[in-house]
Amino acid sequence: MTAAYTQLEARFKRLAVIRDSAGVLEWDLQTLMPPGGAQARTEQLATLSVMAHELLTDPRTGELLERAETDALNAWQQANLRGMTREWRHASSVPASLVEARAKANTECEFAWRKARPANDFKGLLPLLQKVLDLARETAAIKGEALGLSPYDALIDQYEPGARQAEITPLFDHLAAVLPELITEVIDKQARRPAILELSGPFPAATQMALARRMMQAVGFDFDHGRLDTSAHPFCSGVPDDIRMTTRWNETDFLPGLMGVLHETGHAMYERGLPEDWRMQPVGAALGMGLHESQSLIVEMQASRSREFITWLAPRAAEAFNGSGPAWSAENFIRIYGKVERSLIRVDADEVTYPCHIVLRYRLEQALIGGDLKLADLPGAWADGMKALVGIVPPGDKDGCLQDIHWPGGGWGYFPSYTLGAMTAAQLFDAARRARPEIPTALGRGDFVPLMGWLRENVHSKGCLLPAHELLIAATGKPLDPQIFLRHLRTRYLDS
Amino acid sequence: MTAAYTQLEARFKRLAVIRDSAGVLEWDLQTLMPPGGAQARTEQLATLSVMAHELLTDPRTGELLERAETDALNAWQQANLRGMTREWRHASSVPASLVEARAKANTECEFAWRKARPANDFKGLLPLLQKVLDLARETAAIKGEALGLSPYDALIDQYEPGARQAEITPLFDHLAAVLPELITEVIDKQARRPAILELSGPFPAATQMALARRMMQAVGFDFDHGRLDTSAHPFCSGVPDDIRMTTRWNETDFLPGLMGVLHETGHAMYERGLPEDWRMQPVGAALGMGLHESQSLIVEMQASRSREFITWLAPRAAEAFNGSGPAWSAENFIRIYGKVERSLIRVDADEVTYPCHIVLRYRLEQALIGGDLKLADLPGAWADGMKALVGIVPPGDKDGCLQDIHWPGGGWGYFPSYTLGAMTAAQLFDAARRARPEIPTALGRGDFVPLMGWLRENVHSKGCLLPAHELLIAATGKPLDPQIFLRHLRTRYLDS
Repeated sequence: MTAAYTQLEARFKRLAVIRDSAGVLEWDLQTLMPPGGAQARTEQLATLSVMAHELLTDPRTGELLERAETDALNAWQQANLRGMTREWRHASSVPASLVEARAKANTECEFAWRKARPANDFKGLLPLLQKVLDLARETAAIKGEALGLSPYDALIDQYEPGARQAEITPLFDHLAAVLPELITEVIDKQARRPAILELSGPFPAATQMALARRMMQAVGFDFDHGRLDTSAHPFCSGVPDDIRMTTRWNETDFLPGLMGVLHETGHAMYERGLPEDWRMQPVGAALGMGLHESQSLIVEMQASRSREFITWLAPRAAEAFNGSGPAWSAENFIRIYGKVERSLIRVDADEVTYPCHIVLRYRLEQALIGGDLKLADLPGAWADGMKALVGIVPPGDKDGCLQDIHWPGGGWGYFPSYTLGAMTAAQLFDAARRARPEIPTALGRGDFVPLMGWLRENVHSKGCLLPAHELLIAATGKPLDPQIFLRHLRTRYLDS
Repeated sequence: MTAAYTQLEARFKRLAVIRDSAGVLEWDLQTLMPPGGAQARTEQLATLSVMAHELLTDPRTGELLERAETDALNAWQQANLRGMTREWRHASSVPASLVEARAKANTECEFAWRKARPANDFKGLLPLLQKVLDLARETAAIKGEALGLSPYDALIDQYEPGARQAEITPLFDHLAAVLPELITEVIDKQARRPAILELSGPFPAATQMALARRMMQAVGFDFDHGRLDTSAHPFCSGVPDDIRMTTRWNETDFLPGLMGVLHETGHAMYERGLPEDWRMQPVGAALGMGLHESQSLIVEMQASRSREFITWLAPRAAEAFNGSGPAWSAENFIRIYGKVERSLIRVDADEVTYPCHIVLRYRLEQALIGGDLKLADLPGAWADGMKALVGIVPPGDKDGCLQDIHWPGGGWGYFPSYTLGAMTAAQLFDAARRARPEIPTALGRGDFVPLMGWLRENVHSKGCLLPAHELLIAATGKPLDPQIFLRHLRTRYLDS
C-alpha cells in the first residue's frame, strides 16, 4: 500500500492544479477576456473553488493526515505535512454552509461598497457590512476553537501562519509610540529642503512599458518565465515557472507606476525562487502574506528607493522620455520618491506613515472581532485613531473607514501582514547588506544580482521549510525587531 | 434524495469545467505563454486530464447512469442522459493502463514524426507508429466489444457519434466513383479560362487582422463574446460565451489566411449558437466533428467562396491593401479561390479533390485497423490509392503517408469526419437557400444574417438533442445525400 504521505502529495498536487488553473482563468479574466465571457468565467471559478474545497475537506484527507503522522519523513516532507495539516484544519473546521454564506455576503457587500464609497455612504453599507462582520466573527470563533487560538488570531493565521497578537501587539505598540513624532520630524526636515520639481509629460504607455521591462530585467525578472500585461488593478499571479505580472499606465505621471512595477517584481522574484523540487506542494509555496510583502518591499522600498538605485534610474528615465534639466536629476527623483506627508489614503501613503495606517486598522479589527467596538461606532473610532497616529482626520468616510476593500470583501485579519512585511523587509535587507557589503554599490549600477542571490539562498529557496519567525532568525540572527525598521527610516529620512 | 439525473448534471458540469479550464490553459499555451512555462503547463494539463477521466469513469457515475434510466425526463434531459452514457461507455470501457500507454505512445510518436516527416523517414518512424497502431487496435477492439460495434466503427464513433462504416462506405465509394473523372473535367475546363493574376504584396499582418475582423463581423462573430489572436497553428476553442479563435499571418499572401479565418469563424458561430439552457452539459455541446466541420465549410466553402460573396469581398480587400487593377477584380478572386488541381497535400487541397484524399485515408485506416494491411506496406498502398483517386503519386513519404499528424498522434477514425462534414455542408446550405431564397443576395452585400438565422434555428440551437442523421433529416428533409454535394461541385466548377 502506498504510504499515506505519498497519497497526500498526490492529493495536494491536484489541489494545486485546480488553484493554478483558477489562477490562469483569473489572470485571463483581468487582462484579456471579452466582457461577454464574465458569466461563464464566474461559474467556472466558483466550481473550481468548490472542487478545491471538497478535495481538501474530504474525510479521506483527514484520515491520511492522521496516518501520515507515523510515516518516516525527512525535514521537507515533515514541513510539507505541517502545511497540509494547517490548510486542512482551516478548511475543514468551517461548515460548508458558513463558507457559502460568507462568500455570498462578501460578494454582495463588496459590490455595494463600490457604490457606497464614492457616495460617502457608511450608513447605507452598514447592514451588509454588519453581516460580513458577523460571519467573519462566527468563522473566527469556529476556527479559533479548532486551532486552539483566539478568534482574531485564527483570522490572522489564515494569511500569516503562526503569527499571534501576543507578538504583533507589542511590535505595533512600539511603532505607534515612535512614529507620530518621527513623522513630524521628517516633515519638518523636508520643509526646509528645496522644493520638488514636477516632471512634465505626457509619458506614453509604450515608453513606460519599455522602461518598466528594463527595470524588471535589472531586478532579474526572466521574461522566458513570465509576462507583463495591463489590467485595471495591478497584480502578480501565475506559478513559479510562469509568473504573470500586470500593471496600469498613467500617461500624466509615470513615477508611481514604475515603483508599482518594481513592487510587483519583488513578489514575482519570490515566487520564481521558490524551491523547484517542491512545486505544487504546500511546502513549496510562499510562506505567508507578510513574507511575500517583505519581498516586494525589499525591491521597492529598500532597494529601488535607495539613493544608489535612484541615481542609476533617473538618467535612464530621462533618456526614455527625452527629459532634461533639474527636474530629471537624481536628487529631484530622490525627493519625489522620498516625500513624507500626512495623508488619508493607505495605498498612497509613504513608508514612514504607512505603518500608522496599519496599526489603526489592526486595533480596530481587534475591537470589532472581539466585540468591543460596534460597527456603527467605527467612523468615530477611525477619526480618533487617525488623529492620534497620522495627525489628520478624514472629512468623510470615503477617505476614512470606507477606503479599503478588505473589510467589505471579508478579508479580516489581513492588514497586519503589510507592516510585518515592511519590518521584515528592513531586517532582511539589513542582514543581506551585512552579508554582502557590495549590495549598495551593485544597486548603483542597476545590478540586483548580489541582493537577489542572498534572498534566493536565505528566503526564496526555503519555501515553507521553516515557520516565518524561524526563517527570519536563520536568515538574520534574530526575531523580528522593529528597531531595525525604525533605524532604516531615521537613516533615510533624517540623517541623509 | 436528489434524483440520480440531477446528480449526474452536477457531475458532468464539473467535467465540463475541468475541460473548459484545460481549454483556457491550452489556448494560453498556444498564444501567450512564455516558453519557460511549458513544463508546468504540461503537468497541469496532464493532471486535469486524469482528473476528468477519473470523474467520468468513477463507479459512482455508472451507478447514477443506471439509476437515472428510471427518472422522469423530458426530451432534452433524455438526450443529455444519452450523451452522458455514451461518454461514460467510451471512457470506462478502456482500462486506465491502456489510456496511459496510448497517451505515452502517441506523444512519443508525434514528437518523432515532427523530425521523421521532413527527413522523409518512414522506416525510422515505423516502430513507434506500429506501437501507436497496435494500441489503437487494442482500444478499438475493447471499445467495440463494450459498445457492440466493429473495432473501426468504435474509433469513428469517438468523433462521430452514431456514424458507421455501413453508411459511410457506400457514400465514399460513390464519391470515389465520380470524383476522379469530375476532377479531370474541371481541370480541363479551367485550363481554357484566362490565367490567374498574382496579387503582389507585401500584406502587413495588422491590415490582414483588420480585414479578417471585418469579415468575421460580417459573418456575425461577436467580439464581446470572443477574441481573435495569433498562434502557430490556427484553431478555435473556448466556450460558447467566450470563443477563442486564432490564426497566423502570411505577409506575402493574404488570401488563404483570410479563408482560414472564415473557416474558423464557421466553427465559432456553431459554438456560439449552442443551446444556452444547456451550457456545460453533454446535450449542450457540439454534435460531432462532422457537423462541426460542416459549419466551418458552410461559411468557408459554401458561402464565402460563392460568386456573390467574393464579389463583395474583392473590392474590400483591394481597399484594405490599396490594391487596384485586374488582379484585384472579383473575377480574378473567383479564379484564385476556385482553382482545382491534383495536389499531394490534403490540407492544401481544393474542395473538389479534398474528398479523394479522405477516401484514401478512410480505406487505409479500415485496412490497417482491420489487420488487412501491414504498416510496412502503407507507402505502397498510399501511392496506389493516390494514383487511382487523385491521379498523382508522391515522390516521397513526406508528401505521402507522413503528411498528417493524425496517425502518429493516435487520431485514428477522425478522417471520415472531414468529408462527412463537406457533404453535410452542401446539403444544409442547399436546404437553407431553399428555405430562405434571399441568402445568395444577402451574401452579395456581405450579409450572413439570413444564412446564420437558419443555421442557428435548425442546427446550432439543437445541440445534441437529436443524433446527427436525425438532425439532418429534420433540417433538410432527407438523410445524407452525396448527390447534393456533387451537384454543388458541378454547378460551381463546370456550369458557371
